[in-house]
Amino acid sequence: MNHLSSSSVSSASRVNNVLYAQAGGVTAVINTSAVAVIETVMANSSHFGQVFAAFNGIKGILEEELIDLSNLSSDTLEALKYQPGAAFGACRFDLDPLSHNPAQYDRVLEVFKTYQIGTFFYNGGNGSMITAQKVADYCCQHDHPVTCIGVAKTIDNDLALSHCSPGFGSAAKYLASSFLEATLDTFSMHDTSTKFFALETMGRNTGWLSLSAGLIKDIMPDVPLIILPAERPFNQTAFLTKVQQLIQQKGYCVCAVSEGLQDQKGQYLAIANIEHTHERDYTQLGGVGYHIAQLVAKHFSIKTHCAIPDYLQRSASHLVSETDWKMAYQAGKSAVEAAMQGKHGVLPVVTLTSDTPFKWAFKTVPLNDVANLEKTVPNEFLSDDGMDITPSALAYLRPLIQGEKTPPFKGGLPHIPVIEWTTVTKQLPSFKAIK
Amino acid sequence: MNHLSSSSVSSASRVNNVLYAQAGGVTAVINTSAVAVIETVMANSSHFGQVFAAFNGIKGILEEELIDLSNLSSDTLEALKYQPGAAFGACRFDLDPLSHNPAQYDRVLEVFKTYQIGTFFYNGGNGSMITAQKVADYCCQHDHPVTCIGVAKTIDNDLALSHCSPGFGSAAKYLASSFLEATLDTFSMHDTSTKFFALETMGRNTGWLSLSAGLIKDIMPDVPLIILPAERPFNQTAFLTKVQQLIQQKGYCVCAVSEGLQDQKGQYLAIANIEHTHERDYTQLGGVGYHIAQLVAKHFSIKTHCAIPDYLQRSASHLVSETDWKMAYQAGKSAVEAAMQGKHGVLPVVTLTSDTPFKWAFKTVPLNDVANLEKTVPNEFLSDDGMDITPSALAYLRPLIQGEKTPPFKGGLPHIPVIEWTTVTKQLPSFKAIK
Repeated sequence: MNHLSSSSVSSASRVNNVLYAQAGGVTAVINTSAVAVIETVMANSSHFGQVFAAFNGIKGILEEELIDLSNLSSDTLEALKYQPGAAFGACRFDLDPLSHNPAQYDRVLEVFKTYQIGTFFYNGGNGSMITAQKVADYCCQHDHPVTCIGVAKTIDNDLALSHCSPGFGSAAKYLASSFLEATLDTFSMHDTSTKFFALETMGRNTGWLSLSAGLIKDIMPDVPLIILPAERPFNQTAFLTKVQQLIQQKGYCVCAVSEGLQDQKGQYLAIANIEHTHERDYTQLGGVGYHIAQLVAKHFSIKTHCAIPDYLQRSASHLVSETDWKMAYQAGKSAVEAAMQGKHGVLPVVTLTSDTPFKWAFKTVPLNDVANLEKTVPNEFLSDDGMDITPSALAYLRPLIQGEKTPPFKGGLPHIPVIEWTTVTKQLPSFKAIK
Repeated sequence: MNHLSSSSVSSASRVNNVLYAQAGGVTAVINTSAVAVIETVMANSSHFGQVFAAFNGIKGILEEELIDLSNLSSDTLEALKYQPGAAFGACRFDLDPLSHNPAQYDRVLEVFKTYQIGTFFYNGGNGSMITAQKVADYCCQHDHPVTCIGVAKTIDNDLALSHCSPGFGSAAKYLASSFLEATLDTFSMHDTSTKFFALETMGRNTGWLSLSAGLIKDIMPDVPLIILPAERPFNQTAFLTKVQQLIQQKGYCVCAVSEGLQDQKGQYLAIANIEHTHERDYTQLGGVGYHIAQLVAKHFSIKTHCAIPDYLQRSASHLVSETDWKMAYQAGKSAVEAAMQGKHGVLPVVTLTSDTPFKWAFKTVPLNDVANLEKTVPNEFLSDDGMDITPSALAYLRPLIQGEKTPPFKGGLPHIPVIEWTTVTKQLPSFKAIK
């Protein structure tokens, strides 16, 4: 990250520049949304001025770490479409409440005024949406009207009011494909080796990702499968009974478990770390797959194994769902279109326009309506015992993983050129976001 | 697995039937070798009779669980080329020493005589090769000459006398691609989130798989990387010092660690389970990635993450190296050709015929010469501190991951039809391999 060259803001008097920023956990297609925002803004130059990205989300706004995207080459834009991670840096950092730290809000306002930002696109999760809305409200109250539009993304699929979340389909495709392969591995050796295999998926509060592993039923309808989604308290007795039944019937058993699995008392089964972050303690999860696999190993004296893909599931650009990729692009494009329609404080979300064939579009909902909601796995997507996937869940999940959007490979690896950004020369006094 | 229909052995008097079996941990391309054996045998019908597979390796031979492969459709053969796991079942089971259990050897001899097996191809690791050799010796000593040829496979790349092991290139490609994606994820969020990410690879005694993650240097030459291969005792102080240096320089650090990492006293850093298997205790490894990540988290009070792909790395048929796939095919083909040349007790291994361009061929070596050897990562492939990959290691690894042999996808998932085998009707009294 160099700060060598500069590209200062144009002197046009209209407040019509655009700022795009990323926040929170990444998806394999978050940068597809970024490209969509950039391309759609550039295609509407009569409406918009320059387009900037903040480096590291809201923190980069506070610290005036901005990237001028006006002259990106088509090669760079093309490469960005396959780039894992957050190409512009994503922060796990939120503004303090206004009453606690008004200086932060004044600073954002100052940056927005200096760079004549009239539209702010924030590509993040629920928390980021609240932040974006607060920022926009503050700017509007201080004589600098800013249109604020959210760009949806999360692998967790917990976004309320949306048919699904951009980013989820690719994670689901990665997990289901990997689980299928590992299940065939386990199946092929269970006679004298591993009889129980667990795949630990992400999902702090919701079980969508563990549920998605159940898509292997499309290939192996009779697979001896157990799903342990985050929303359903872990019933150890019922679980062990089911493991025993499946191993008796099929000789082996495979299990997909949410990292956020809790016991009957609401305690996480596995905590990797307690971490102190800005303003709050954050329980870092991880390891429940081992917990479950060792429980089974000890209880039945059998060999078990466990895989924990962790970041691999949210950054697997080599196995992206084409459907998800298109949704991620449209999430960015719809955000810009909403801004052009004069909308403010909204989030474009996915709505079904047809079940069969599967057709979707984006509509906008107020940011405040979705920010504090969380979409959990509904009862009809789980069997009565809460440990198996239902046909209606498969029908919901299946369209989201269709198609492959494979990156080019070069030299045996995904061709992901690392893009070095140059931030603009700072015009304001320095400001430290984290004291 | 049904035993419904039957296909008994032909009444031809020549002892020229073929038996193929799989053993030990699988690779993403083991079934490619199986197809090569089958196709090459079928193409030489003047030399060979029927071709059978044992279901579950040597255990299937003892229990007369045999599959007649003579009439496989071209569709099935094509599907097998992309099938993860061991299509015919792989066993973790070895024959007892002859002096302990001569009945086992008599039984194998009886099965071989009954099915007029003249050539035995065993697709396994070092242990299986010894077993195969012992079986062949016993048959020869008892008036039933059997040609025994090994078919090489292991993701661990520890096969001696071979430039590399079929199966390794695909695991290396999978690990390097996944590590690249997760590294870009970590890089993009390190400013306010995870600053240390560990990828735990397989590798009980050798560090080839953790080393292969270092291939990301081809994309990110300056990546702040630490490799902890199994052969080098873990020096905690040196490790933590390097982590600190890299995080100071780059803001983050990524690490690939072998599951078999040992401390200075030769103790494994992480043991998932102690498992009692046939004839011996087997220390099941797993979790060293967590160990390392938590060590760093506590020592520096920073956020860390860890991924443990486990079986995913050896069964990722969706990300197979074309070079490795070709080697796996040639491993099977060369084995059949060696048999036709009258060789016995040999293993075809990879030999380089040209460095630049990268060209290879198979040559045969005596099974006894390779069975007890283990190829470890040489010193010149690691930096002086033992924690970084060298240019010569990259030059060695790079050709092995070239090209993509992607399976067809159907309905969003790898199109891997589960093949149901029918074993032949048993002709012998029953025999239980494991009492």
